Order: sequence, then C-alpha cells, then structure tokens
Amino acid sequence: MATTSEANALRYNLDVDYVVRYSFGNVDQSQAIQELEKLLRTLTSVGLQTEVRQGDETSLLIFVRATSKRLKRAVYRSRVRDWLYGILNAEPDSAGSIEPATEAERLRVINQMITLPAEEGGAGITPNHGEWKNVTNVFPLHDEETNKKWMRDWSKKTFLSDEDLDQIRDKFGESVGFYFSFLQSYFRFLIFPAVFGFSCWFFLGGYSVIYTAVNSLWCIIFVEYWKRQEVDLSCRWQTKGLSVVQTPRREFKPEKHVRDEGTGEMRGIFPATKRMQRQLLQIPFAILAAIALGVIIATCFAIEIFISELYNGPFKTYLVFIPTILVSAGVPTISAVLMSIATKLNDFENHETNDGYDVALTQKVFVINFITSYLPVLLTAFVYVPFASRIVPYLDVFRLTVRPFVSKEHCESKKSHFQIDPARLRNQVIYFTVTAQIVGLAMETIVPYLKQHAFRKYKEYKKRNGNGNGNGKAGQNGDKGSPERSPIMTYDDPAEEKEFLKRVRNEVELSEYEVTDDLREMCIQFGYLALFSPVWPLVPVSFFINNWIELRSDFFKICMEFQRPTPLRADTIGPWLDTLGFLSWVGSITSAALVYLFSGNPHHGPNGDVTDIRGWALLLVIFFSEHLYLIIRYAVQTAMTRLEPPHARKERAERYLMRKRYLDSTVTTDTEKDLQSDKDDTLPETPEISRSALEDDARRSSMHDTDPAERFWQRQHGWTESAEIGAGIIRAQPSSGSAKKQQ
Amino acid sequence: MATTSEANALRYNLDVDYVVRYSFGNVDQSQAIQELEKLLRTLTSVGLQTEVRQGDETSLLIFVRATSKRLKRAVYRSRVRDWLYGILNAEPDSAGSIEPATEAERLRVINQMITLPAEEGGAGITPNHGEWKNVTNVFPLHDEETNKKWMRDWSKKTFLSDEDLDQIRDKFGESVGFYFSFLQSYFRFLIFPAVFGFSCWFFLGGYSVIYTAVNSLWCIIFVEYWKRQEVDLSCRWQTKGLSVVQTPRREFKPEKHVRDEGTGEMRGIFPATKRMQRQLLQIPFAILAAIALGVIIATCFAIEIFISELYNGPFKTYLVFIPTILVSAGVPTISAVLMSIATKLNDFENHETNDGYDVALTQKVFVINFITSYLPVLLTAFVYVPFASRIVPYLDVFRLTVRPFVSKEHCESKKSHFQIDPARLRNQVIYFTVTAQIVGLAMETIVPYLKQHAFRKYKEYKKRNGNGNGNGKAGQNGDKGSPERSPIMTYDDPAEEKEFLKRVRNEVELSEYEVTDDLREMCIQFGYLALFSPVWPLVPVSFFINNWIELRSDFFKICMEFQRPTPLRADTIGPWLDTLGFLSWVGSITSAALVYLFSGNPHHGPNGDVTDIRGWALLLVIFFSEHLYLIIRYAVQTAMTRLEPPHARKERAERYLMRKRYLDSTVTTDTEKDLQSDKDDTLPETPEISRSALEDDARRSSMHDTDPAERFWQRQHGWTESAEIGAGIIRAQPSSGSAKKQQ
Repeated sequence: MATTSEANALRYNLDVDYVVRYSFGNVDQSQAIQELEKLLRTLTSVGLQTEVRQGDETSLLIFVRATSKRLKRAVYRSRVRDWLYGILNAEPDSAGSIEPATEAERLRVINQMITLPAEEGGAGITPNHGEWKNVTNVFPLHDEETNKKWMRDWSKKTFLSDEDLDQIRDKFGESVGFYFSFLQSYFRFLIFPAVFGFSCWFFLGGYSVIYTAVNSLWCIIFVEYWKRQEVDLSCRWQTKGLSVVQTPRREFKPEKHVRDEGTGEMRGIFPATKRMQRQLLQIPFAILAAIALGVIIATCFAIEIFISELYNGPFKTYLVFIPTILVSAGVPTISAVLMSIATKLNDFENHETNDGYDVALTQKVFVINFITSYLPVLLTAFVYVPFASRIVPYLDVFRLTVRPFVSKEHCESKKSHFQIDPARLRNQVIYFTVTAQIVGLAMETIVPYLKQHAFRKYKEYKKRNGNGNGNGKAGQNGDKGSPERSPIMTYDDPAEEKEFLKRVRNEVELSEYEVTDDLREMCIQFGYLALFSPVWPLVPVSFFINNWIELRSDFFKICMEFQRPTPLRADTIGPWLDTLGFLSWVGSITSAALVYLFSGNPHHGPNGDVTDIRGWALLLVIFFSEHLYLIIRYAVQTAMTRLEPPHARKERAERYLMRKRYLDSTVTTDTEKDLQSDKDDTLPETPEISRSALEDDARRSSMHDTDPAERFWQRQHGWTESAEIGAGIIRAQPSSGSAKKQQ
Repeated sequence: MATTSEANALRYNLDVDYVVRYSFGNVDQSQAIQELEKLLRTLTSVGLQTEVRQGDETSLLIFVRATSKRLKRAVYRSRVRDWLYGILNAEPDSAGSIEPATEAERLRVINQMITLPAEEGGAGITPNHGEWKNVTNVFPLHDEETNKKWMRDWSKKTFLSDEDLDQIRDKFGESVGFYFSFLQSYFRFLIFPAVFGFSCWFFLGGYSVIYTAVNSLWCIIFVEYWKRQEVDLSCRWQTKGLSVVQTPRREFKPEKHVRDEGTGEMRGIFPATKRMQRQLLQIPFAILAAIALGVIIATCFAIEIFISELYNGPFKTYLVFIPTILVSAGVPTISAVLMSIATKLNDFENHETNDGYDVALTQKVFVINFITSYLPVLLTAFVYVPFASRIVPYLDVFRLTVRPFVSKEHCESKKSHFQIDPARLRNQVIYFTVTAQIVGLAMETIVPYLKQHAFRKYKEYKKRNGNGNGNGKAGQNGDKGSPERSPIMTYDDPAEEKEFLKRVRNEVELSEYEVTDDLREMCIQFGYLALFSPVWPLVPVSFFINNWIELRSDFFKICMEFQRPTPLRADTIGPWLDTLGFLSWVGSITSAALVYLFSGNPHHGPNGDVTDIRGWALLLVIFFSEHLYLIIRYAVQTAMTRLEPPHARKERAERYLMRKRYLDSTVTTDTEKDLQSDKDDTLPETPEISRSALEDDARRSSMHDTDPAERFWQRQHGWTESAEIGAGIIRAQPSSGSAKKQQ
C-alpha cells in the first residue's frame, strides 16, 4: 500500500524504481549498441519501462520503472512461492487485487523481475557476470527526504521504538531491519552492565569477582534473549523458515542434475560429503592464520616491550613507533592475503546458495578477526604479566640489532632493571575499547564522507576552471591533442532534470552496502565486553555511549556513503549468533583466569609476582568457572524455550487456521451428513441394537454356525442385558464385608 | 487394513478389543450395580458393544468391541486433529472410506473412544480417578500367536530388519517401536567398539590412549546418528511434531482459563514463570540426593576396604558381607524415599501434559540413578587409588567397633601393612558390566516369570485340593463358617470360553508396562561404556552380547509379564537423548583422567604411586580432552545436519504438495486467465506500448501538465527510442581506445 510518504518519495525520485548502469568503456561501439538494445528489449519484455540518460563518458544510466499490471503479477508469483514453502500462512489473493505490502517488497520484487532467470519470469540480468558483464550496477535510489527526517528524529531520542524498526524494515528490507533491531537490543541491554560496571569500578576497582560473575550472567541472558527475539521478529516480519527459499548461487557448479520428487523441479546436486571433505581444509587454514598473525603480533609485542621498557638509548621516542608501524603495516597486509586465501577456499567448497556461501566465509574470516582483535590483549594478560620476568631477559637479543647504531658504552651503561608496568594491561584495554572505537567510527563514517565531498568539490572546481578555458563539451573535435586540459564532462541534460541526474551520478559512484561488516564490528565489540571487561569495568559504559552514536552513524553511512541496498530478506543475523555464544563461552574462561591472576592488586594492577600463581589452582578455577557457565547457560536456555514469543504463538495459530480453512473447503456433503448425524445421536434405544444384532445373528447363524467370536458376542444383547448379568454376578458374591476380609 | 494375521488374532481373542475391569469389592452392592449400569450405558453410547463376565470374587470383566461405523468416525476425527496440527500431511478422507491403518491405530482410537472426555467424543472413563475409580484396568489382550512367532523368528537372527521394527510399531505403537529401534541401533553400533575393544585388550591392555580416543569418538557419532535416526523414524511413522498434540494431564490444576485465539478452544493456563520458580526446588533436591546416597555409599565403601584389606581378625569371611548387605539394604531404601520426594515435587510443579510430567520426573530420578550407578566406581578410581595411602590409616576408627568382639592381642598382632589392591578397580568394573547385567536380566525377566508360574501352580493345587473336599462353588450357603476350608473360585463359564477366560484372568493380574524403565536401563549401560571402559576394554563385548539377549528378553517380558500396552505415539525417546549426550560428555572427562592416572601400569593395574600424579597436569589433560570432545562433537553435529535423512526430505515434499493442492483448489478463473495470458505474452510490439502510453500521455497531459515524473517518463516512448538515444550517446563519446586511456 503506497502511503503518502512513499508516494512523495517516488515522485521525488521521478518515479524511478531502479537504476541500471551499463558501461561501454571496454567494448567497441557497435557491440555496445547491440548489447544496449538487447538489454532494453529484455527489460521491457518483463514489463519495465525504460529511460536512458548519460552516466559519464563510459557509461549509460538506464532508469527502470515497473508497470502496474506486471508488478502485481510478479508480486503474486513471489507470494505463491512463499506460500508453497511455508513462509507465508495466508493464501495469496488472486492476481487482480495484489499490491506490494511495503516499499521493500516492491523493490525486492522489481529486483527479482530484473535478475531472476527467464524460466522463473525475470529478465535474467546478472550484473558483472556472464553475458551481462557490462552491466555494472543495479540499485534503487535513496529516499533522501525520509532519510533526513529519520536522522533528525532519532538524534533526539534515546531508544528506537518497535514502530521505528518496522519502518526501517518497510524501507530497507528485513536484513537491514534485523541489524538495527540487534543493535537496538544490544544497546538497551547495555544499560545494566554500564550502571553496574560504573558502581563496581567506583567501589571495588578492577578484577572483582562480583563484577565478573554478573558480567558473564549478563552475556548469557543477552544471547539467549536475542535468540528468542529473532524468532519473534521473524514471525512478525513473516520470514520464518526462510532458509528453504534461498537464492541459488550463480557460480555453483553442480555435479549432476536430478528431479526433485516433491516439487518436480530440476535441481543441481553436489554431494554434501564431498563438500565436507573440502571443508576440512579449514583446519590447516586456521592454523596457518593463527601462526602468521600470531608471529607478527607477538614479534611486534616483544619489540615494543624491549624498546619501551628495556631500551634507554637514543631516539627512544621515535623508535617506540617502530612496532606500531610494523603492526599497522604488517597485520592488514597479512590479513588481506589470508582473506583472499579464505575466499578461494570458499569458492572451492562450491556452495549451493548465497547464504551458505556467506556463512562459510564468515566462519573463516572470523578466525582472522579473532586473532587480530584479541591476541594483543591475551598476550599482555597471560604471557607478559605472569612470565615477563623470565622471558624479558631473552629479549636482549634485540640489543644486537640496535648495537650497530648505538655506541657500546651507551648500551651497557643504560641497561636498566626490568620491572613490569602494572598499568599496561589496563591501558591496552582502554585503548581497544575507547580509542579504537572512536577511531573506527571516524574511519568508517566521517572520513569517507569528507573524502566524497572533497572529491566533488575538486571536480566542480575543475569544471569551473575548465569551462573558463573554453568549451568543455566532451566529444567535440580538436581537444584531444592537448594534454594539459583534461576534458571535463558536461552532460546534455534537460534543464529540469539536471539536479536529479547530478544526484543520481553521485549515487552511482558509491559502493554496495554489506550488512555483515557492521555485524562483525558489533560482535567483536561484544567480545571485548565478554573477555576483558573485568580488567576495566567501565568498558560497558564506553560501549553504551559508542552504540548510541553507532546506530545513528550507521544509518547515516547507509544513506550517505553507500548505494541504497536492494532489500534482502532474513530471519536471523546468521553466523554471528553462534559467534556471540562462542565469545561468551571464551569469556567465561578468560574472565575467571584474569580475576584469579590479578585480583591481588585491584587498584594498581598486577605486580607480576609469579610465585603466587599456582598452575593447578588456575586450572581448577577455569574448570569450575567454565562448567558453572555451561550449567547456567543450559538453565537459561531451558527457561527461554518455555516462554514462547508472542508472535511465534500467533504464527502457529495462523498455520492451524490455514489447515482448518483447507479442511472446511474440502469437506463433502456426505461427511457433513455423517458428522451431523453423529452429533444428533442420542443414546440409541436398546431395542435398536437388539434388532439389528438379531438380524445380524439370524443372517450369520444361517451361514456360519461355528464362529466362536460371534457366539461370544451374542450372549448378551445390549447393555441392559449385560447389566443384568453383571448385577447377578455381583449379588452372587459374598457380602462386601466378608469380601473385604477375604481380600 | 485388517490383514490375515490381524484377523486371525482378533478371532483368537474372540474379537475382543479391550478389557475393562470393574472392581466392586469396596462398595456396597446396590451402588456397584448402579455404577455398572452407568458404565455399560456410557460405553454403549460411544459405539462399543459390551459383554460382561466374572473376573474374580470382587471384580467383573467387561469385554468391549467397537462397531465398524463408529470406529471409522473416531478414526476420522483423530486424523482430522492430526491434520490440523500439522502432524499428518495428507488430508483425511471423508468419513465413509476410512479404515485404521494399523492395529496400533485401531487400539489407540478405541482407547480414545473409552477415555476421552465427552466433549471430545469419548466415554470419559478415567481409570482409578474421579467418578470411575472402581474401574481399575483398561487394556487390550495379547496376540499370543504373533508374539510366539516373532520370538521364534528373532531368536534365529542377529539383526532385526526395518520391516521387523515396522511390524513392532504396527502392533504395539510408536513409543515401543522407538525403544526397540533404539535398542537395535545401539546393538548394531556396538559391533565396532566390541571388535576394537577386544583387539585393544589383547594387544595393549587397559588404559590405552588410542582406545579411549576411539571410544569417545564412537560415543559422539552414535548419539548424533541416533538424533538423525529419530527424525527419520518420526517422519516415516508420521509422528513428527507430535509435541503440539500432547494429551493433557488430568491432575493439572490451571490458574485461569483463556480462549486460545488461534484454535478457539478454551485452555487452562498456569504461568510458566511460576512453574519455573517451583522447578528451582530441583537444586536442593539434587544436593540432598547426592549427600544422602553419597554418604551411605562412601561409608559402606570405607567399611569394605577396612574389612577386606586391613582387618585380619576372626569372622573375616562373614564380615566381608556386611557392607554388601548395608548397601543392598540402605541404597534402595533411601532411593525409594528420594523417589517419593521427587514425585511429590513433580506434582507440585503442576505440569500441563503427561509428556511434560514424565520428562520432568525423569530428570529428577536420573540424579538418583547416576549416583547409585556410578559413584562406587568413581570412588574407587579417584579417591581410593590416588589417596588411599593417606586416608586408609584413618579407617582405623573402625577397629574401635570391632574391639569388643575380638581379643586385644588378636587385633594388634594381626595389624597388617596396607597395600592398594591394584585389581580392585578392574574387578569392580567387571562386576558392574558383566555380573550386574546378568543379575539384572534375571531379576527383570526370569524371576517374575517363575514367580507367576509358581503362583498359578499353587492356585491350581489349592483348587484341586479344595474340590476334593467338597463343592467349592463360591457363594453357596453353609461354607462361610468353617475357617479351615478357604472358598475356592470356580466360575460359571460357558464351556467353550473357559480357556479364553482363564487366559484373560491371568492377564488381568499383570502390571502395566512402562517403556521409560527399559530406556533408563539402556542409558545407564551406555554410561558405563562412556565413563569407565578404558579400565577394561572388553566392556563393549559384554554389552554386545547382553543387548542381543536384552532385545529378545524385553519383548518376552512385554508379552509374558505385562499387560499389552495401550499403543502410545512418540517422536523421540525423550529426555534420555539428552542423558546420552550428557553421559558422553562426562565420559570425556573421566576417561582422560583415568588414562592419565593409571596408564603407568596397563596390565597390573595402578600401584597408587601418588608422587607421579601432578594436579596441574591432570587438570590440563582434562581441559584439553573435554574441549577436544566439544570441538569434535560440534563438527559431527554440523556434518549430520547437512545429511538430511531420506524420510525427512519426503515429509518436506509432502508439506509442499499439500499446499500446492490447496492452492490449486482455490485458484479462480481470473487468476488462471491472467497467468495464461502471462505465459502467452510474446514481446509486446513497440507500437502497443507507444499507443497506450500515448493515450495515457494524452489523458494525463490534459489533466496534469506539471508532473515532472510523468514528463521524465515520456521523453522516450518504448525501448527502441531509448535504444536510439543510448546509441547516440555511445557514438558521441571518444572512441573506446581513448576511452580506456581516460579511465
């Protein structure tokens, strides 16, 4: 149902539904014109109106709008598919009276009209792939008015309401809706540890047992609550059970094709066992990633300790930055290499669906994320502090590298006595949870925005300067030869469309939004809370503030720095849910270990007294803490499954009613008569049964006089006769008094 | 569909479906006669024929048979209910053409006709409860011929086939079918550890790492395989999703009644949160059970060690039995007390359904089972062997109790030097896994059978003696006064029914079968395999042999020592599945600890050298073993979920087809026409769109000349015009060569 704001939005975007960018820079002109004709013809054949404008010097923009009749048919087809697979429980109406329920559904269905293969009723346009590889982008336009309005509204409130989240889902689809729902739930839940952490920090300092226990309990409850909330949301947004309707992956190479017995469709098959064998390669990959990243992080760590705490020679202030530079340069490089290996492995596994591919890739990449995010703190906490007194003397090896640069006496005379820096661990945690978050926010949101604006200003400046130097109309002869003056583009746009097309050309430059990157960020943040917050109990406070900004900055980012995403459906945040549970589990181990190792000196940090640490006591503490965590998690899970989410109950009722409607529609008149007569049956008169029974008897005894079963059943005709015989037996027994004595 | 054998069975049982036992011993005669009339009238009103015979001196037997028409209606009603709740995927046929699919369905539906409340179409007979508390039994009769045939057949084969299991399900219901399926799967899986264990025992002795690792892996794979097999069976036997159709519990006391929005039925509600609070009482109960049983087992253990290894005075051979007697007497007593506490707790929790009640009770009772079954071995392995040298001197306290009975010199001179008995642990494991199994089999199967036969022989002997002394006809005057001659029952049976009624009277004496007891036995056995088999690798061999006998002896037990069970449906073995997983987990810890502690002396048992045992090394071994177990279990689970069981896929296809049939039945002619025209649409000719678009243009421009969106879309009419304009733009660009340079 197009609401007023939707109608306004459409008009603001001149009723354009999608923009298709066709790039002709890599092909010769005749081929480009042929491809363009084919593209336009295909789009029109599925019921889309087209308009062509110039994009830039090497691309065209094709604006696409769906005709009402064909759109309704496509919506109907999509809903029938959902219905058949059990996702929708209300039968789709006939094709005449269907409107897309939300803007997101409209855009999704139009996207299907563009991209689905011809046998499923689409145009088969596959961007960057196969015969359409010159089609580089297919995206909808931003609804800037609504975006601005929402950003204004949300900057005034603390919490988003359920209606706000529904609105996000109506505009951007369920996938983005789930992310913002998750972020909002996480934010809401963070109130408690923020308050509790602040009071613990104030009264107890760091490494307190109470805070750690409550923190672990909070992690358990949050993860289980979100699992339940996901089910509730998926029922409410009608995407429950979506995993059976997954979009197949184009790059999937099936081994053979079989006909599915149930649905009758042809399906490509790749044996699951073969895929699992290929997935075993994840193990050496994980080991390789752990070693590669671990070595570089540990080495830089050692160098840093050497320089900051052992070394006292010249240029100390500058040399301190060497490990930072090494890490900042080395880790992303190695991460990128590992990421490409992971992607190649993932392609090798030949997943059938896009969702399966994404899940598998997320799992591989998470190994890299885990190491780069948490290993530095783990090294500080569990290697540096307990064992530094033993290891650090070996770091003298670095002196050898320094020796050529420093005079001999300088070296030896400045050899200082090593002492553990007690605040190192806490400072590191503060860095990761406050500084790194702020820097990340800036890198993610502010810097790209500034970059875009600077780039556009530069282009405009160039254009004004270029125009001052003469006609800048591209394509005119005579300007090709002069190298100093780069040809500036002005476009042959109608006057009233100039503003609109300028906006569209800007949006074309933006990249595609991936919700999984934002989810990754949130999960890594959650990991810091679960693993290391006993070190500095203000961690949740910092996250609380950061997440308020994050929700609004992420929305800003989607609106300003990315193309509007094609609405995708989802019924879960995917593999990140398992990741949260895993981090929570690891957190129970590391928190207990931290508290045991360091609770001696809450306010001043650990002093590294190794004799106080007993290996068996540490392991025993970890053992109990972990098993207590597992028991409590099991109890919370059981409790949560008993509390059925309200929308799930509604969804179950809908399924029941659907079957009832079907049954009512197929009940025949015979059945109705039978059931009616069943209800109208009073207790049949004894003679009735006797009569029919006697008739049966007469018939049967005339045929089979020898059936013992029938003779058995003929001895007492009707219940009154049975009652009489029974009463006779009862009376024949001794009286109840002596019957009791005998018993 | 009544097969020949079924027809034979019915005739053998004189076509009797159910036997209802009415006891009038506790009420006076007039009341009894009234109740009897009411009972017979109620039974007849739901469509059951009745015949009354005498049971014994205080009871009547009412034989019940269902009339064909009413039975079909009841089957239809039951299938409609299943259909509405999503258990059946095929629409129930109209009432005219329905037959019970299996004997089990027939018996189940007739049981429903007897026991369901009146508003659901039954007679409302609730044995031992409420107004029918004089109805003590409602049970079907055994089909002795088939039973004997199966026992003969199965004693010749090693493995039961899938068809045999289907036959069990057809006769006895899905609940019993699941048990035998589980037993068969477990038996089949035991081949591998039996063979592997035998070779390990032969070549490596006990406590070998290889055997332990393979054993844990086997446990993981078996449990995950059975989970998958359960799903497959529930799809094949069409009970998937049964949990929504659970039979409500009669003793449930709801707090309030609400109308269910979906189904429209009135439901009693008891808040889940309140129940969960009551369930917290399980924690102190578990602690109490652990302490009570633990104290008695540990005390008897200490006494036994004292007497068998320290004490050397007189009567040693007799005193050794004291702890055995104490344990055999004390543990069952305390277990019974704890069991009654558990039952009261369970009643207090006010469960809604029978299944929920059973699951909760099983969980509570399992604590008791776990302690009584495993604590003795755990004590020997982890307390006696490592710490005995320190603890045993304290056992000298027992000398004080012995002292009055023994002369002083005897005591002191015989004070022997204490040495750990290295074979104690192994002997104990052998006892539990071989001797106790054999004794259990005898107690469970052979002894009750002998008892029954002895009792019947005694009754017959008494009867023959009584008849020799005169007329034994009960109820005749004159015999009441003489105390020496007890009145013997002979019954006034028709000659041809004597044999039949004698058999029925024997079956009435039997007790009701509970499948959960047999499942408990199997799970406890599995626990021994998971926890303690590294001690003696022949454990799986013993279980393999035992389980072959067990399957047949359990069937014998059901046929001979219990009333034929009313067929119950199930889609899982219930809480025992979680128990298997839990035992497997605990096994990973204990196996690792056992191997670490005792692998020094594989063939001669541990020598209790405590200095070799390091606490931290033990905890580290446990830590790694447990987490390796969890990782492998996660991997196996993931692999199993990818391999979809064949029947589950079929069930999914059925659900798809069901919805398709519904959709096809509701498609209107308009939709068909639309869809047809959709398929028939060739590429619309350009003029067509142009014409309609021109018409639209003309219409709109006459109304709104100012809509920028419409003007945007009118600039290019049809795709050919767009193609021309696009081609113009392409040609207007610099050639592709210089375009590439610019890019």
